[in-house]
Amino acid sequence: MAETRQWRLASRPTGEPTRENFDLVTVDRPEPGPGEVLVKTLYQSVDPYMRGRMRDEESYAEPWDVGDPMQAGIVGEVVQSEADDFDEGDVVTGNLLWAEHAVADADELRPVNPELGPVSTALGVLGMPGITGYFGMLDVADPSPGETVVVSAAAGAVGSVAGQIARLSGARVVGTAGSEEKIDWLTDELGFDAAINYKETDDLEAAVAEACPDGVDAYFDNVGGPITDAVWPLLNVDARVAVCGQISLYNETEVPTGPRKLSKLIESRARVEGFLVGDYQSRWGEALESLSEFIQQDDLHYRENVVDGFENAPDAFLGLFEGENIGKQLVKVAERGE
Amino acid sequence: MAETRQWRLASRPTGEPTRENFDLVTVDRPEPGPGEVLVKTLYQSVDPYMRGRMRDEESYAEPWDVGDPMQAGIVGEVVQSEADDFDEGDVVTGNLLWAEHAVADADELRPVNPELGPVSTALGVLGMPGITGYFGMLDVADPSPGETVVVSAAAGAVGSVAGQIARLSGARVVGTAGSEEKIDWLTDELGFDAAINYKETDDLEAAVAEACPDGVDAYFDNVGGPITDAVWPLLNVDARVAVCGQISLYNETEVPTGPRKLSKLIESRARVEGFLVGDYQSRWGEALESLSEFIQQDDLHYRENVVDGFENAPDAFLGLFEGENIGKQLVKVAERGE
Repeated sequence: MAETRQWRLASRPTGEPTRENFDLVTVDRPEPGPGEVLVKTLYQSVDPYMRGRMRDEESYAEPWDVGDPMQAGIVGEVVQSEADDFDEGDVVTGNLLWAEHAVADADELRPVNPELGPVSTALGVLGMPGITGYFGMLDVADPSPGETVVVSAAAGAVGSVAGQIARLSGARVVGTAGSEEKIDWLTDELGFDAAINYKETDDLEAAVAEACPDGVDAYFDNVGGPITDAVWPLLNVDARVAVCGQISLYNETEVPTGPRKLSKLIESRARVEGFLVGDYQSRWGEALESLSEFIQQDDLHYRENVVDGFENAPDAFLGLFEGENIGKQLVKVAERGE
Repeated sequence: MAETRQWRLASRPTGEPTRENFDLVTVDRPEPGPGEVLVKTLYQSVDPYMRGRMRDEESYAEPWDVGDPMQAGIVGEVVQSEADDFDEGDVVTGNLLWAEHAVADADELRPVNPELGPVSTALGVLGMPGITGYFGMLDVADPSPGETVVVSAAAGAVGSVAGQIARLSGARVVGTAGSEEKIDWLTDELGFDAAINYKETDDLEAAVAEACPDGVDAYFDNVGGPITDAVWPLLNVDARVAVCGQISLYNETEVPTGPRKLSKLIESRARVEGFLVGDYQSRWGEALESLSEFIQQDDLHYRENVVDGFENAPDAFLGLFEGENIGKQLVKVAERGE
């Protein structure tokens, strides 16, 4: 019987995850039942939010059980179909497993059209991260022409889209990122008006203040912690803060503390709002259409950082916390049609 | 020439203000010019926000200068009028001075109708604090029937109105306050469903959780600090936090720190918003009408805590930070018509 490999949660991490928290196991390849398809993974996504699922705590995504395979967004190829909607060879995307093959209900998959561009984009700029950046910026941060917008982790999969959407809305955009290569990409290729390398800055608040002489009207926050502390005092009257992620805190073992932030909201009448892309399911198509159009018009650029080989998936995940990726972090698992 | 007395800012407090920060001076009674009136103060208001004006820092209200008289909401009687709109004997309210007499532009005053109720209410339930509670609750916290709403400093001038407005909106209302007398007032007279004496509670979060078995849908925050920390983990999906004040932090000499709060907003998609009643100037009449009607229908109760004598105004102010007042804290300065 044919086999496949899966990554399972070996143990829950304390603080920063390590390879020891992951177990690579070989299992029988599952068989699709009626209405199901067997999908061969081409690309697997690794995302910061997965850190939360490794914890034994109820949050917006269910915690993973130790010993079980972990979920991941994947782009794959249908290799066996017992469903009317899909044929062998179709490219699909969905939330399946950290696995080389997985069975999925046809209802849980979306078709991917390989003629529109690289299929991997269905996990990045044209997938969950891109759509997160799109709605988080337009719906929550809500920039107007001439306003100043700050995006943290601006060179990541979500931040790079969020920042460009702000630029396309006519705002002045300032990004933070952790390497000179990222800073150059933001300002030279993505059209950010300024970018700050937080790793090379002694006084973050002064650096943000210098890059935002008119204060901050909207802040798209992917990281939390000291970068957010630096942006906070600069919030203008009626500012909006879209809280998308807090990656700087995900590996903390104790309740993270920092300067209290609510007094500033009174003075500035600012609104701070958390959001989840899952709440925008019904408007997914609208975002995809806009983002595709922007890409075709060369108004929206993206990058992918691809780690080759399924066996390296944990390293790709761990690299997210080191800030190694520019753009979307992917694991290439297999070629189409092989 | 007739004289009058004023309280002036003698020095800026470090941490908790003391009587040494205030100076009582006797000056010539000012003369109204054309379009102005001379007002004799009947009641003077003391409010937590005044602490911010004692600092040498730009905030939503201008800092006071050392040596200058301080501003305060007052209800007073016109004793000399050089304006068409007001006659001698009229009762008015406005933002004048910590003073027994002050001159004001007629434009800066609102008439108070003594037949509608005690004139002091123009500084409390039918003035700035009441209107703050009204709009903060309806416009920012936005409760729905059946929801759970928490109000901190619920026995204060703002919180007591905010909580009753939530009850009138059909929500279940839980208040926090610092004495058994306040707790009894909240539950027995104001119709709160539960009230927590935070000074008698070892585990605030457990106490709030017990009082809010279905979590917290809206939180009207007057205090910040540990009480807010206790409410935060209980915020439900789509919860709203109206940030009105942070009195527990106003006397801090260093940047206050506490648990970081933004991660919770992602999971709960909660919205946290600061507001200032000054932004509702154009809707002031609408609030007054509703609040008056609620009082007449016995649906809205209030209390005033009156300190007698202008010379005691600083003590009335300092008592705000000790949580001494139930309801609106006032200073009675003079009788009408004397």
